[in-house]
Amino acid sequence: MRIFKIGLLLLSITMFGQEDEKVLKKIYNTSLSDGMSYAWLDHLSNKIGSRLSGSVGAQKAVEYTQSELVKLGLDRVWLQPVMVPKWVRGEKETAYFESAGKRYELNICALGGSVATPQEGLRGQVIEVQGIQEMKSLEADQIRGKIVFFNRAMEETLIQTFQAYGGCVDQRYAGAMEAGRLGALGVIVRSPNLRLDDFPHTGSMTYGDLPVDQRIPSAAISTNDAEMLSAYLKKDKGLQLGFHQQCIQMEDVESYNVIGEITGSEYPNEFIIVGGHLDSWDLGDGSHDDGAGVVQSMEVLRLLSMQESKPKRSIRVVLFMNEENGLRGGKKYAEEAKMNNENHVMALESDAGGFTPRGFSFDCSDEEFAQVKSWEPLFKPYLIHYFEKGGSGADIGPLKSEGMVLAGLRPDSQRYFDYHHAANDTFDAVNKRELELGAATMTSLIYLYDKYGTAKKMTLPVKN
Amino acid sequence: MRIFKIGLLLLSITMFGQEDEKVLKKIYNTSLSDGMSYAWLDHLSNKIGSRLSGSVGAQKAVEYTQSELVKLGLDRVWLQPVMVPKWVRGEKETAYFESAGKRYELNICALGGSVATPQEGLRGQVIEVQGIQEMKSLEADQIRGKIVFFNRAMEETLIQTFQAYGGCVDQRYAGAMEAGRLGALGVIVRSPNLRLDDFPHTGSMTYGDLPVDQRIPSAAISTNDAEMLSAYLKKDKGLQLGFHQQCIQMEDVESYNVIGEITGSEYPNEFIIVGGHLDSWDLGDGSHDDGAGVVQSMEVLRLLSMQESKPKRSIRVVLFMNEENGLRGGKKYAEEAKMNNENHVMALESDAGGFTPRGFSFDCSDEEFAQVKSWEPLFKPYLIHYFEKGGSGADIGPLKSEGMVLAGLRPDSQRYFDYHHAANDTFDAVNKRELELGAATMTSLIYLYDKYGTAKKMTLPVKN
Repeated sequence: MRIFKIGLLLLSITMFGQEDEKVLKKIYNTSLSDGMSYAWLDHLSNKIGSRLSGSVGAQKAVEYTQSELVKLGLDRVWLQPVMVPKWVRGEKETAYFESAGKRYELNICALGGSVATPQEGLRGQVIEVQGIQEMKSLEADQIRGKIVFFNRAMEETLIQTFQAYGGCVDQRYAGAMEAGRLGALGVIVRSPNLRLDDFPHTGSMTYGDLPVDQRIPSAAISTNDAEMLSAYLKKDKGLQLGFHQQCIQMEDVESYNVIGEITGSEYPNEFIIVGGHLDSWDLGDGSHDDGAGVVQSMEVLRLLSMQESKPKRSIRVVLFMNEENGLRGGKKYAEEAKMNNENHVMALESDAGGFTPRGFSFDCSDEEFAQVKSWEPLFKPYLIHYFEKGGSGADIGPLKSEGMVLAGLRPDSQRYFDYHHAANDTFDAVNKRELELGAATMTSLIYLYDKYGTAKKMTLPVKN
Repeated sequence: MRIFKIGLLLLSITMFGQEDEKVLKKIYNTSLSDGMSYAWLDHLSNKIGSRLSGSVGAQKAVEYTQSELVKLGLDRVWLQPVMVPKWVRGEKETAYFESAGKRYELNICALGGSVATPQEGLRGQVIEVQGIQEMKSLEADQIRGKIVFFNRAMEETLIQTFQAYGGCVDQRYAGAMEAGRLGALGVIVRSPNLRLDDFPHTGSMTYGDLPVDQRIPSAAISTNDAEMLSAYLKKDKGLQLGFHQQCIQMEDVESYNVIGEITGSEYPNEFIIVGGHLDSWDLGDGSHDDGAGVVQSMEVLRLLSMQESKPKRSIRVVLFMNEENGLRGGKKYAEEAKMNNENHVMALESDAGGFTPRGFSFDCSDEEFAQVKSWEPLFKPYLIHYFEKGGSGADIGPLKSEGMVLAGLRPDSQRYFDYHHAANDTFDAVNKRELELGAATMTSLIYLYDKYGTAKKMTLPVKN
């Protein structure tokens, strides 16, 4: 059946002025021709490197970004103390399997938060499952004493790769907890990566409230190795897999969120925040996750400082600590904001990589969403087309309150999981222009929210 | 002054059916989960390599793509002979400059079509200019006997990088011709690359009808080296630059456009074509330029072959020879189409890299453009937002006639000039998913044009 659809009559109200077009042009031009984000990322990635919570790198990153924010001449720059978990990977992990007398090495890494294997390593038969549900459907003796191999791949037909990630990350996060409950020996997870390559991808996992004696080691192997292991298992169900990791969960240590503020000239008690997370996993240097978000957020305040008039509302950059394995920084910031009765009206996070920005996703009311949709035409010259309702960012999530606008930058996501939490998440994987376009896109949104306020408390335009 | 703009009342007519949504979904799913484009590109790039017109690689690419099209079981596959220029780079070029007794090596490559330097190389004083216009404004003796260094950079504030390329490519294409006329010794051009790196980028140049004795050697140096040379010239106007290249323009040789066709079931005499160019420059393996466009175009016919019903119009894939240094393939195809009175209604080219597709640009009438704009909503789930009037592709340009629709795939362009015509345009720079998304996007557009026809001769929907 062929049908013709006749679209709706659409009344579009665009609430912005020609002056705004000029301001956005200047913001993009400055970011692309005289930006700081790439140089900052170079330092963060190449001079400091990985920044796992509680590590020396994380501490150096706190000091470096604090000192760079001070140089910008903001009204206030400070550190917000927060206790964070400290997990240490220890010596490089090893793994192999043996089939028909031959030994095959595997590219492996411990999952963040996992316990170690015994000193001599762990060895056993493997049971492959496509997820937690399939594992639970098996007989007890199919799991007990075995190494459970979670091999559900990311769904490649999904256009937005974060959806594909969401569809399989549960096996990484909770696989060991559930398998431990069933008496498994250990857990091996296929790395959540859409590409076939040799990088194992780490990431957080939990044991929940599982008794300590049921906590089993869990690790990720590369997608190529997951394919190989699965192929060998089809021929040899009895093959033996061994792995060795010496990671340790230590006592919590003190760390910091790094915060900088331009105090609002008209509504200093209305807060707009922009941020990313300062911590990273320990395998690469965390350039995409989330060095990019950190330097883009810093650039937002720098670019706003360069505007002719000071922001009306108080704009804060918040560089959150411990997004990766605890979210302690995000929780702490929200807790103190509440305690101090701070009125946060809008928050934006960049934590999806430093790729070409496509737009934003918004967690807000319909009224608020209508306002931001009205700004779409302003962004079109910069090829920013994506304005949709959806999630925002993990760190700003705890701030959520009625009437507030939470937003997440949405860069192109096709290559993100090639690098995510792996040793190849390094500076050379970030393109300067793509990073700078993201910073300019974020700055433009914050500029508009500062100028007009959120829809709920919109600043009515006055002739002047 | 702040103003509020009230938008227009907009009547949008969407001319497509729910069936189309299902077809597009299937096209994208198949391309992403069971596509051939990446495997074809792997062969073209890694087994064959570079494909400069008249080279062994170009001939192998003709044979390979022909045989792959035959395997698809198309109605017709044939080679269209075309005479092409044959230019050979010869041994690796060298260059240096000397200042204050020190020697600095430069990363250099001859421009395609350039003459060689004398056997012993060429050496002289350098005059830096920002373009042809500036050169022409100088006194004759400032140019005569000198090496002209064209150092105009791509404009980094332009969002669409092809515009930035368009703004400086004249110095590469015509710089040597104009400088030769003024008695210069040679020409060095800054590579058109938005990034600072060490890769020299080749590309076509012309001497026009300049007498042979005025034809001077021209070459490109990397952006890092252009910056270095310019900095040294500021301190030492008398510095000496030398370069050596042994390229040769040979006699034209016979080559081929590779063409495959699915003959239309209802309107076999209406032709829709999709293509890219089979030749590439010789420094990398031409994966982005234009291996990507070649395999995506082949994939369009494969994906259309897999549809339930045969296309109504005749769909041709045309793999053009010699886009890079002559456009002979494009001209030949158009010439024969005209001679045979073939009615070409629509043509699509992919020649802007294998990056995430953003949409299309259309060279067509307002009436035709209104039709394709009505299809936009169908593409939104695939994050295809860009439908604008503009250029299409060099190879399909000669086909242009009134009433015809010419279109170009528009992928994300931020990284394209990092690789364009340089040694790093290799297979590893192409992401599988991005390539596949492009192929699916192209297939979807061709599917719609086949089903509905162009606006001028739209197939009226019938109830069945």
